[in-house]
Amino acid sequence: MTNMMKRWQISAAGRQTLELADVPVPVAGPGEVLVRVKAVSLNYRDRLFLENQGYAQFALPFTPASDLAGEVQGVGPGVTRFKAGDRVINNFTAGWIDGPPPRVNGVNQSFGGPLPGVLAEYVALPAEWLVAAPATLDDAEASTLPCAALTAWTSLVELGGLRPGETVLVQGTGGVSLFALQFAAAMGAEVIVTSSGEEKLERAKALGATHGINRETTPDWAEAVLGITSGRGADHILEMVGGTNLGRSMAAIAPSGRISLIGVIGGFESSLPSFPAFQAQATVQAIFVGNRRGLENMVRAVDRIGLKPVIDTQFAFADLPDGLDRLERGPFGKIVIRVSK
Amino acid sequence: MTNMMKRWQISAAGRQTLELADVPVPVAGPGEVLVRVKAVSLNYRDRLFLENQGYAQFALPFTPASDLAGEVQGVGPGVTRFKAGDRVINNFTAGWIDGPPPRVNGVNQSFGGPLPGVLAEYVALPAEWLVAAPATLDDAEASTLPCAALTAWTSLVELGGLRPGETVLVQGTGGVSLFALQFAAAMGAEVIVTSSGEEKLERAKALGATHGINRETTPDWAEAVLGITSGRGADHILEMVGGTNLGRSMAAIAPSGRISLIGVIGGFESSLPSFPAFQAQATVQAIFVGNRRGLENMVRAVDRIGLKPVIDTQFAFADLPDGLDRLERGPFGKIVIRVSK
Amino acid sequence: MTNMMKRWQISAAGRQTLELADVPVPVAGPGEVLVRVKAVSLNYRDRLFLENQGYAQFALPFTPASDLAGEVQGVGPGVTRFKAGDRVINNFTAGWIDGPPPRVNGVNQSFGGPLPGVLAEYVALPAEWLVAAPATLDDAEASTLPCAALTAWTSLVELGGLRPGETVLVQGTGGVSLFALQFAAAMGAEVIVTSSGEEKLERAKALGATHGINRETTPDWAEAVLGITSGRGADHILEMVGGTNLGRSMAAIAPSGRISLIGVIGGFESSLPSFPAFQAQATVQAIFVGNRRGLENMVRAVDRIGLKPVIDTQFAFADLPDGLDRLERGPFGKIVIRVSK
Amino acid sequence: MTNMMKRWQISAAGRQTLELADVPVPVAGPGEVLVRVKAVSLNYRDRLFLENQGYAQFALPFTPASDLAGEVQGVGPGVTRFKAGDRVINNFTAGWIDGPPPRVNGVNQSFGGPLPGVLAEYVALPAEWLVAAPATLDDAEASTLPCAALTAWTSLVELGGLRPGETVLVQGTGGVSLFALQFAAAMGAEVIVTSSGEEKLERAKALGATHGINRETTPDWAEAVLGITSGRGADHILEMVGGTNLGRSMAAIAPSGRISLIGVIGGFESSLPSFPAFQAQATVQAIFVGNRRGLENMVRAVDRIGLKPVIDTQFAFADLPDGLDRLERGPFGKIVIRVSK
Repeated sequence: MTNMMKRWQISAAGRQTLELADVPVPVAGPGEVLVRVKAVSLNYRDRLFLENQGYAQFALPFTPASDLAGEVQGVGPGVTRFKAGDRVINNFTAGWIDGPPPRVNGVNQSFGGPLPGVLAEYVALPAEWLVAAPATLDDAEASTLPCAALTAWTSLVELGGLRPGETVLVQGTGGVSLFALQFAAAMGAEVIVTSSGEEKLERAKALGATHGINRETTPDWAEAVLGITSGRGADHILEMVGGTNLGRSMAAIAPSGRISLIGVIGGFESSLPSFPAFQAQATVQAIFVGNRRGLENMVRAVDRIGLKPVIDTQFAFADLPDGLDRLERGPFGKIVIRVSK
Repeated sequence: MTNMMKRWQISAAGRQTLELADVPVPVAGPGEVLVRVKAVSLNYRDRLFLENQGYAQFALPFTPASDLAGEVQGVGPGVTRFKAGDRVINNFTAGWIDGPPPRVNGVNQSFGGPLPGVLAEYVALPAEWLVAAPATLDDAEASTLPCAALTAWTSLVELGGLRPGETVLVQGTGGVSLFALQFAAAMGAEVIVTSSGEEKLERAKALGATHGINRETTPDWAEAVLGITSGRGADHILEMVGGTNLGRSMAAIAPSGRISLIGVIGGFESSLPSFPAFQAQATVQAIFVGNRRGLENMVRAVDRIGLKPVIDTQFAFADLPDGLDRLERGPFGKIVIRVSK
Repeated sequence: MTNMMKRWQISAAGRQTLELADVPVPVAGPGEVLVRVKAVSLNYRDRLFLENQGYAQFALPFTPASDLAGEVQGVGPGVTRFKAGDRVINNFTAGWIDGPPPRVNGVNQSFGGPLPGVLAEYVALPAEWLVAAPATLDDAEASTLPCAALTAWTSLVELGGLRPGETVLVQGTGGVSLFALQFAAAMGAEVIVTSSGEEKLERAKALGATHGINRETTPDWAEAVLGITSGRGADHILEMVGGTNLGRSMAAIAPSGRISLIGVIGGFESSLPSFPAFQAQATVQAIFVGNRRGLENMVRAVDRIGLKPVIDTQFAFADLPDGLDRLERGPFGKIVIRVSK
Repeated sequence: MTNMMKRWQISAAGRQTLELADVPVPVAGPGEVLVRVKAVSLNYRDRLFLENQGYAQFALPFTPASDLAGEVQGVGPGVTRFKAGDRVINNFTAGWIDGPPPRVNGVNQSFGGPLPGVLAEYVALPAEWLVAAPATLDDAEASTLPCAALTAWTSLVELGGLRPGETVLVQGTGGVSLFALQFAAAMGAEVIVTSSGEEKLERAKALGATHGINRETTPDWAEAVLGITSGRGADHILEMVGGTNLGRSMAAIAPSGRISLIGVIGGFESSLPSFPAFQAQATVQAIFVGNRRGLENMVRAVDRIGLKPVIDTQFAFADLPDGLDRLERGPFGKIVIRVSK
């Protein structure tokens, strides 16, 4: 291990300054762990941060991406939680062990914005912010869990209390949606997926979806959900769009049902129609990924149910720009950057 | 008891056809109870139904109002739940005993719309839809519970799980808000009330509110809530306005906090800003009053804590129009119509 | 349909008076349904009631058994919940729709004791006490659900909130235990089964158990559970024995774990050791089968996950005594009596 | 501040070796805080540890007592949670921040056994194990919270979800019982207290109890509870005795009620009768004091509701033996040792 390493960073908002810089390997301070990063997965939010510094404040130069899988290289003073050689993944939000999110001035401290990201050969992080990687996944697969999988798990299990026999509606076939589909199917739920293409719907059914709704040919998908559920609606809906789409989700919700608000591609301001919400006594909960306890619970579940994350494409460390391009075109599952072996 | 009775009704949408009609006393069928109505309380929604048939469908002639306190006059075949002489109140939604709301074609069956209302000297209702009135309240007080008090109780206790030491924000000083204030204060919560007038704030404090915020002099009341709570925000907010007001509630919510969506005076379409909702992992739940189990739990609590409903004004049965006028001017607490002695 | 039918009954405590009597077909009163009984499943408690009237009071002649699957033959006045031809099963406890159990003088009103049982060609029951049978099960299979399956479901799902990745310990291979195994496996839990025989353990594994512990060769099964779970213990334990066995369950429980107290073969008085209970902050909850809402939720789940009840043996209606003998010898799964076609 | 301080300790099991020793003031290591101890409260378990090393393992010399209130004197490297001058109390169990209890080899690490206790002029503890003391309590009062008050709070609020109008039964008038009484009364619950003396019952009523049952004159107190509650029973029972007393608690429990198992004076093995437990579907949960999140929630509540701990007697630091004698005679409320000013 040399004293220098490679790290992706921008020196100003926008992809045009994105570069693979040479910087010193960080040192693990008291309570910290030095992690050799093996794989990093990308999320839609990484593009928001790269393109628009206004999404939230961060310091320059700024390194993107929030999700890593790696191997503990060494530990700083006082660390007993991990030892060299352990395989780890990180929790998406720094310092969130359990209970409610620990906002700092109203904002949670997540990797890849506002905190520095993890697209580097090494990172030094507090041991308390890491958890053991699932034994049944390789590094690329494990790297997909911190943001997308935990968002789905928190929505359906930790906060949603999903039971077998309930109906789950997932919108689209991005990372969070596919994890939600897989968890829900593994728990014995009925899973309805909406998508804009037949091929994606077929792939979703192969992963365990019970029903597919083609949004192109069935624009009023809420009506279709009511049809599938004999008028009852879906007990759990993952709202992946936001904006006016929330109104359609509300038209499709079952009595005492839960809508997990996750996506923002339809706007950062969503419309909540009161009348159907009252009739169902529906809940809308905004999901901010999840805490470390939920992540640990999920890792146990992943190993138990044998869940294999759906990876759309893997890219070499140097090919991050290609990965970002792919992210823009709506992948089926996750984009992974292989950082080191 | 004669065979005829008085009943308020409209023959077309709008108050202009409101009349006190002579109609036959109903007969209690199998499983039903004949109730001599003693008092009826009014709710804001009664005005919506009277003025605009489009709010929801109902049959004409239509009798307004949802909340009664009365005395069982007789029982139909098979009734064991009550006997003549029992003092009762009704649950707001017909047939909702427990669990999720029992929508019929997407709409809950509530009294005073879409079901016929209770502004009559007698009503015949299924025994299962009634509960024993609190022993510590007189008829006028008991009549205020079915809609307004249960809405507050469901929001804070049945669904909210309010704990001592938590902070509750109630908006305004209408019926639901004052019940929420009283329940929250009786449970050891910190209660912040917003209002447009100093006098109302003083009266709210006399009822147990810890803090008052004058919306006229402090338009950014969300900021004021953060100030009172050292930046944490309120754990429970009763959203009594809707529309864009929901955005301000979201700015004032604590991590893992709950907003109970109740009022619609600001619009039937509310705006939910995603960014602060994510940071708090906040929940918005639309409240449709509550089920019979919650009502029974609440009646026990009312008797135990000695809660006295705040009645703004009582009117004689014949003076319903004056009561409706008073309702329009923003009463402090409830409007009660005394139907019979 | 004639006016007379066959019904099993005893005229005094003890199997010696058990006879197949000719009695009038009952009539469905107001709110009631006449059910043509197709199949009845037996439970261990049926033997307790037959042998010992002291277990709980009941009227003579007494008809045993609590669980039926049948077809609605006709409905009494006022019934809208079912119509002739509907396939139904009954809830084990009469009048328990939702929420806490409705004790009458401290005792719940269940079929087959203290209420009359269902081993008859026809029964007339309130429509509210029945639910639609699962579409995916035949009558014999459906008849196994009311007591055994709902006990397992209530323990793990309704009250237990089981999550994927958690560990469930089921004791033995009787009806409740096998349903618990099947539900837990279908939800992605790790399932450990104890049994006295290797063959039964193999069959349990074929049904989805992850680990089997042979109680004969491994008497300290609690230690074995700790070994399997890396010292953590099981998150959910179904206590099927009672008495001193509860102490061993407590030695095997995980932190914040739940023991569902179900069986009484080891005694009606169980020993709860405080020290390990404190360290785990463990919960012991006695399970009284479950309410109608839970049964309806379970039926949805059974249809969704394709659960097939394990039936040890089926007997003709006239061969009830053989079925009772078989019950005594510890069947693998349920004993079903075919009442009519 | 000199380099030496006074500390109570034993060099062998049993009070005969108890001495006030001169030992070096500890040094705050990384992540630790040096606390000047102001007051320490005693608990019944302190006597168990002093008299019988077998209760659990600990190292000699051993310092007794688990609960302190003090002032931060200085902080070690990396501490940001507190600063010199802050008033603090400790959580009873080391390292338990949230979620399930963190057993080590099956045993939780609590102060005063198995970990060293706090009867010393100074202690050095990880900052994460401390919380801010309530602003409304003095040091003696604040020192009573870590074990007794949190046990009551965890039982009724964190795990029990107590609601206004519910019935709480507390057994006796020791520290935990009086805190439970005060919390329950402040939340609008009906509180029944059992005690062996009329004077204690009068004092309990003055603190908010609704009913008192004299165990001397009413040995069948379970029957008395059923009488007070119209046959329903108590929704929450704090079991302060254990052994056969648990059977009586079970006879007094309401449907879906909770018994919090806390006391061991009646034995470390409790008898759980299945029949009444089934009928109520009752829960017994062993309570191990509580986690830091619960303690922080409770501190907020104490400040909000103005709860004043009941202190039986205060003793000077040198008079610990007198305090232990008093503890043996069944105090009404807490015993406090004033350590320093």
